[in-house]
Amino acid sequence: MDKIVDHINVNRDRYVEELKQYLAIPSVSALPQHKDDVRRCAEWTADQMRRIGLQTVRLEETPGHPIVYGEWLGAQGAPTILFYGHYDVQPVDPLNLWTSPPFEATVRDGEIYARGSVDDKGQVFMHFKAVEAHMKEHGRLPVNMKFLIEGEEEVGSANLDNFVNANKALLKADVVVISDSPMFDRGVPSICYGLRGLAYYQIDLRGTKSDLHSGSFGGAVANPAMVLAQILAQMKDRSGRIKIPGFYDDVVELLPEERAEFAKLPFNERKYRLELGAPRLFGETGFTTLERVWGRPTFEVNGLLSGFTGEGAKTVIPALAMGKVSMRLVPNQDPKKIGDLFEAHIKKIAPKTVELSLTRMHGGKPWMTAFDNPFVQAAGRAIEKGFGQRPVFNREGGSIPVVATFQEELGLPCVLFGVGLPDENAHAPDEKLDLGNFHNGIIASAFLYGEIGGLPR
Amino acid sequence: MDKIVDHINVNRDRYVEELKQYLAIPSVSALPQHKDDVRRCAEWTADQMRRIGLQTVRLEETPGHPIVYGEWLGAQGAPTILFYGHYDVQPVDPLNLWTSPPFEATVRDGEIYARGSVDDKGQVFMHFKAVEAHMKEHGRLPVNMKFLIEGEEEVGSANLDNFVNANKALLKADVVVISDSPMFDRGVPSICYGLRGLAYYQIDLRGTKSDLHSGSFGGAVANPAMVLAQILAQMKDRSGRIKIPGFYDDVVELLPEERAEFAKLPFNERKYRLELGAPRLFGETGFTTLERVWGRPTFEVNGLLSGFTGEGAKTVIPALAMGKVSMRLVPNQDPKKIGDLFEAHIKKIAPKTVELSLTRMHGGKPWMTAFDNPFVQAAGRAIEKGFGQRPVFNREGGSIPVVATFQEELGLPCVLFGVGLPDENAHAPDEKLDLGNFHNGIIASAFLYGEIGGLPR
Repeated sequence: MDKIVDHINVNRDRYVEELKQYLAIPSVSALPQHKDDVRRCAEWTADQMRRIGLQTVRLEETPGHPIVYGEWLGAQGAPTILFYGHYDVQPVDPLNLWTSPPFEATVRDGEIYARGSVDDKGQVFMHFKAVEAHMKEHGRLPVNMKFLIEGEEEVGSANLDNFVNANKALLKADVVVISDSPMFDRGVPSICYGLRGLAYYQIDLRGTKSDLHSGSFGGAVANPAMVLAQILAQMKDRSGRIKIPGFYDDVVELLPEERAEFAKLPFNERKYRLELGAPRLFGETGFTTLERVWGRPTFEVNGLLSGFTGEGAKTVIPALAMGKVSMRLVPNQDPKKIGDLFEAHIKKIAPKTVELSLTRMHGGKPWMTAFDNPFVQAAGRAIEKGFGQRPVFNREGGSIPVVATFQEELGLPCVLFGVGLPDENAHAPDEKLDLGNFHNGIIASAFLYGEIGGLPR
Repeated sequence: MDKIVDHINVNRDRYVEELKQYLAIPSVSALPQHKDDVRRCAEWTADQMRRIGLQTVRLEETPGHPIVYGEWLGAQGAPTILFYGHYDVQPVDPLNLWTSPPFEATVRDGEIYARGSVDDKGQVFMHFKAVEAHMKEHGRLPVNMKFLIEGEEEVGSANLDNFVNANKALLKADVVVISDSPMFDRGVPSICYGLRGLAYYQIDLRGTKSDLHSGSFGGAVANPAMVLAQILAQMKDRSGRIKIPGFYDDVVELLPEERAEFAKLPFNERKYRLELGAPRLFGETGFTTLERVWGRPTFEVNGLLSGFTGEGAKTVIPALAMGKVSMRLVPNQDPKKIGDLFEAHIKKIAPKTVELSLTRMHGGKPWMTAFDNPFVQAAGRAIEKGFGQRPVFNREGGSIPVVATFQEELGLPCVLFGVGLPDENAHAPDEKLDLGNFHNGIIASAFLYGEIGGLPR
């Protein structure tokens, strides 16, 4: 492994330059106008996979954006890793809050700033370079590997379940590795053993057939923007508890051992609050911040739009009001069941003075695994070798719906091997990736293949 | 007067063609990009005033958009009318809901469709043509007239008060005439004796320094979009009553006589509802629709904007949430005092988890006059001659803040001589003006000058 580590150290700058090219492609899967860019990014990904020595590299077409598949299966008798990542990225608005253009990757103070840097191109690319180092130094990998890089993670992986279900033989493996979650903190590498799920909705209310003059008609009709506010306000009580009947029924409560483990982590609430720029932290009464984010479900408003939003004052009663809302789910909440409860609740509380329309957007199941799993332990050793310290074991508040897919469809354990940082602005302006973690992550990934390659099948 | 009526009838089509030119100028006072258009419209207005024979026509500069002034003072011994109107218009968004372009006036089924058609260019132009008819047939007017046409009515007439206060001698008159309010219904001409006032605010909430990933951070911080919803929901109770402490203290309750008068009006609640396209009507418990709109104050949400509002799903906790809200006020509510009560209430209920910022936009005082005033009665006779039937006496839900200005600064009674219809989409897409009412309005205006000219000074 020394030769490989040396190789990675020598090529450090080249990796960054190559990553910049990857980040330059605006593969925003949510926006139809970027459809061609998303395909171009898939092709770039496939080309990269061929360059580093993977075989059978191809684009798998879906009804949406293509999946990129590639493999190297020359490690006879060794286990097989199925590596999952995504080459699509979030939208970039509000664009004016970016310090440098989101698709012109810029290095400042040891961080590379670009949409997709941490979520997830940078972390996918880290594995490409670890594979490349093994290939260049030894002409082979210590483990069998299958790469599955999709283009729809940021829009709910709508076509991945079908692909996985239809390609169980192709995707046969011993463990899934995913690098799409943050480490606990700068200097605190971690292995994540639990994720939250998601149920996302758009609420549309119509009050009248067109906007009305608020003088001539104010007082006579319900205002859909006000009705939306009233509906949203009825989703949570003052203590932060969600008021949808049945919402908490299936929640697996945090174990005393977990709460104790979380409490031992180096977490500074004041620093966290200042980094976010929040006047105060706020969440469900009776839980710490880490417990709220990792082990408790949420109800969030993701967007609001109604009436006049330009500069100045327009005296209008809006005809329409739109809200985007989502619920983060914890084990064992089911997104379908929670969605049904949400729909029943909103239909019950919405007044008959407006027309209500609900659109179920995407959802994902929560996930949790045991942290004494041998693959998880192997990942822990690899992280220790890449970063020089043992990782902590934590959960994460985000959703990677595909983790549940791999668990259910393929019956595979899953290792979340992420090197992002919590303040790297995934989904926000000025998304970035620490280049030190990127580099250590390449080394750790290279070790991971060896660690898993050495495990019994 | 027969010659004048004949003249108006003969020139009917020409008036419409000229009005189209006026409506073609996008004089949107609220939007900075239309600043030059607003000035061009002021110049067009002044030019028109010169053409019809007014004297001393000039643009009066203000810190905002110019005021157009013109006069004809040759009716020795007769009273003087101060006519007020506005040449500015509302913004046109959402543009996609217009059947024809808002600044290309189009006649369909006897209505002229364009932004500004009813509010207020069409009604101002009606008086220009009535003056023109008198001038062409008799070379003089039967009354002294001063025209004051401003360009900031749709943004709160911010500079008009100062202008009126600084020009009391110039504006000396016996009565103010304004044509900027609708008649009661199609075929039911009316004289309006009361208007509501306005207090308009923008609410800005900031939760964090930038948008956050709703997975990684959901549960840890207050969501400003949710906080905004909770704040707005606390502004009204389920019965439609406004919960701002002290809000109703100064309200002049509707008199039994007024309520009886309103109840006699030909008002079909079902037809009204269907015209608006509302599933149900809704308003303050204990009042009829007309009472709610004319005689009761309101709290409306005029706009909402927060987080991700594009197509698809973005899992973000918004950093910011914005709401535009306004309160319609009735006699004797004072917009300044109501604004203070609103600010105190929102500051009290807003949680400390977000930063609150309030911007007082424009406001206007409510107004009411006696309907046995001789000028009001003269206007009633003029309407009867122009429309062939006696008008009803009603109130209006909208605000014309300048009415209070004229009453307070100049001590003048005010006649609201409007020929718009309630369904003509003022402030909304497909704004229009009935050309029959426009034509009858020109005749009625021509009679109005004679009726007022014949009153003792």
